[in-house]
Amino acid sequence: MRDEPRVTEALAGFLVASRWEDIPAAVRHEGVRSLLNFVGGALGGSHDEAVSLAVRVLMPYFGGGQASVIGRSERPDALNAAFLNAVSANVLEYDDTHLATVIHPAAPVAPGLLALAERRPVSGAQLLHALILGVEAECRIGLGVMPTHYRRGWHITATCGIFGAAAAAGKLLGLDKKRMAWALGHAATQSSGLVESLGSMSKSIGVGNAAKNGLAAALFAEAGFTAAEQAIEGRYGFAPVTSDSVKFGAITERLGESWEILANAYKPYPCGVVLFPVIDACLELRARHAPMPQRIQEIVVRGHPLLRERADRPLVETGREAKVSLQHSVAAALLEGAAGLEQFEDRCVADPAVRALRAKVRVEEDESVPVEAALVTLRLDDGGSFTEHVRHGRGTPGRPMSEEELDAKVAELAAFGAPEVDAPGLIGAIRAIEGEADVARIVRLTVSAR
Amino acid sequence: MRDEPRVTEALAGFLVASRWEDIPAAVRHEGVRSLLNFVGGALGGSHDEAVSLAVRVLMPYFGGGQASVIGRSERPDALNAAFLNAVSANVLEYDDTHLATVIHPAAPVAPGLLALAERRPVSGAQLLHALILGVEAECRIGLGVMPTHYRRGWHITATCGIFGAAAAAGKLLGLDKKRMAWALGHAATQSSGLVESLGSMSKSIGVGNAAKNGLAAALFAEAGFTAAEQAIEGRYGFAPVTSDSVKFGAITERLGESWEILANAYKPYPCGVVLFPVIDACLELRARHAPMPQRIQEIVVRGHPLLRERADRPLVETGREAKVSLQHSVAAALLEGAAGLEQFEDRCVADPAVRALRAKVRVEEDESVPVEAALVTLRLDDGGSFTEHVRHGRGTPGRPMSEEELDAKVAELAAFGAPEVDAPGLIGAIRAIEGEADVARIVRLTVSAR
Repeated sequence: MRDEPRVTEALAGFLVASRWEDIPAAVRHEGVRSLLNFVGGALGGSHDEAVSLAVRVLMPYFGGGQASVIGRSERPDALNAAFLNAVSANVLEYDDTHLATVIHPAAPVAPGLLALAERRPVSGAQLLHALILGVEAECRIGLGVMPTHYRRGWHITATCGIFGAAAAAGKLLGLDKKRMAWALGHAATQSSGLVESLGSMSKSIGVGNAAKNGLAAALFAEAGFTAAEQAIEGRYGFAPVTSDSVKFGAITERLGESWEILANAYKPYPCGVVLFPVIDACLELRARHAPMPQRIQEIVVRGHPLLRERADRPLVETGREAKVSLQHSVAAALLEGAAGLEQFEDRCVADPAVRALRAKVRVEEDESVPVEAALVTLRLDDGGSFTEHVRHGRGTPGRPMSEEELDAKVAELAAFGAPEVDAPGLIGAIRAIEGEADVARIVRLTVSAR
Repeated sequence: MRDEPRVTEALAGFLVASRWEDIPAAVRHEGVRSLLNFVGGALGGSHDEAVSLAVRVLMPYFGGGQASVIGRSERPDALNAAFLNAVSANVLEYDDTHLATVIHPAAPVAPGLLALAERRPVSGAQLLHALILGVEAECRIGLGVMPTHYRRGWHITATCGIFGAAAAAGKLLGLDKKRMAWALGHAATQSSGLVESLGSMSKSIGVGNAAKNGLAAALFAEAGFTAAEQAIEGRYGFAPVTSDSVKFGAITERLGESWEILANAYKPYPCGVVLFPVIDACLELRARHAPMPQRIQEIVVRGHPLLRERADRPLVETGREAKVSLQHSVAAALLEGAAGLEQFEDRCVADPAVRALRAKVRVEEDESVPVEAALVTLRLDDGGSFTEHVRHGRGTPGRPMSEEELDAKVAELAAFGAPEVDAPGLIGAIRAIEGEADVARIVRLTVSAR
């Protein structure tokens, strides 16, 4: 009747058949880095206003103490814990990014796994394996529906993240192929999240639901709750309904041979990806030349047209807006010599000196400059000038975050959001997770008395 | 910046400003009928396999005893209760229908209200008012995105139902205009449900989520969790993202003057709407002529082309499939003199006599026959024939269910799914709900020891 390829079945078959022994060392290692970056993000975001409000709203409906909320003291049921940990990990805009789809892969996928690991014994290898497969599922489905999926208005971290959450939880639950396909089906019919919600707290509900409902999808499938068998590719399935440019091959080709998690990148700064090379250049200019702010007449930023399109925001009022403001990022980096969480808080945005410097920034579009590069020129009042050319911004594929940078980022996030947590101990435990027999031991290190 | 009409704001403003005194008597009465039909449906479906499985899956995550599950004994938190009651009400395909959108209005909207009524005192008038407004919101948004919304693959009862659930709960919570708009925004970003899931249990997850997540949307908004302000009409808002034929006027024009609940219809038979006049004709033929099955040579059904398109299914194996099978409905009605829940169970589908009669049914398309009409002709082995022409099937707008028929339907549903419940007492209490000071009293009548 239908002649679509059996995409859901093929993906389910791969997920079920995959063995830990088949996962290359580099892929495993990127799994560790993704998990580490996720836990850091969740620690940093754990006391953000949106997270604390969500806890207040959901607490009356919590089931009994099953799972940890990273960086906090509450102990809800596994589903609500998955929701909250996904919100925390994503709320600071400081998470990981799969550049080809703009999915932030770990936030929807990891929380359900950690919650399950507190319900039954799960080894570090099992958890990593499930995480890697979940990332594979969500990113491949994302590739299959991009670019029109996002362009139409779907917030892809939420809409595709739920498939990753379902696949990963399904793997940990040991679902057979039929049930894994049902888990993907339940994910498909629950997939939601609008780009319109970005910039408001509502975005967090989409990301939280991806984690929570993806976990629920696997639990329903485990119990024999049936779903459509072609929920991704069917006539009224997820892909054709949410995309006008479906590419099924991106989902099914070379499964087990290429790994999307290898393209995962970790933000060095809690702001838009296009700003990374610009900030690198500003930090370098400051370190080398220590220019006096009052002597700066103009700051010229030359970059790819996308830089202006995404981040040309000279007037900003809040930390949230500042995360997508070129002018603010430049001014804050030059004045404070950093572009961390503090530089994207309301305090820094309102600082008169930062405000004055923001007004001196000029953007020049240059098609010949790649997205991951930028040139920044300082013109001084004596007619002199300094230029810094960054070819690969930190945290972009050409210059990935080093192990030390990633550890330092996680420590910064922990200090920001949950200073009571023993960050070095936790980082060490995650880096050694492959040999861990019971992941619940690590999860317990993430909680705080607060 | 944008020149869309302020649809979300206008709808929120209407919902907040609406007073019980402004609701016409006929609208209030249809609210009672919708609620009655909803409770009946939930009683009937309360022990369906999908409901019992969902209870088993979710029970470990239930929060503490806040709300009733209609027809059952469990007592979960309000959010899980809303999920389960929506599933029960919709699972038998026996619920209400807003024909212009094909939304089943009450299943997503009523459960959150009943759950809230067990958390704080709610009068019958308050509950009815919120129900009527919730139905108004979901059906108008549905009208605003049809027909391409459903055609694209969105299961509209779930995708639009969540707006009704959020609006109704928001009204009961007394949200101000800003927070009501946020509730609609949180509904928009959680809206989901694929047509592909119909025919599997997965459909129930969409309907359950509409109730549960719509209630959560209102609770988040109440706490000050912000959302997009143009979540329905914005560039990346619900309407343009899920429809290629947006009509904003259908959402905002004549609010408070016309009422969509007046177009709500209650199914007289637990099957597809197009089958109603056909079943009426068969029951009439049997009552009048009592034809011996073995003497029937052929049964010719003449109807609108939609009848063949939706229900031409000569070979069916399960009760679920039978609900959209013209051949089965005809055979069962002629043989058993009824088309109730029992006639759409696997037992009747497998009955050799029914099977034999199904094979004798022939469908004739006739553009000149309206959808709500049908002609059925029995040709007998002696060359004689009887024809019955039904102009308005029971339960269609031209021949709405009478009060007695509705009460009998609810009693049938209660006997089928939850015989321990005092159906006459419950029906009486709902019919008198306008004068009820505390709806929790009525909710308690719906539970069963089972």
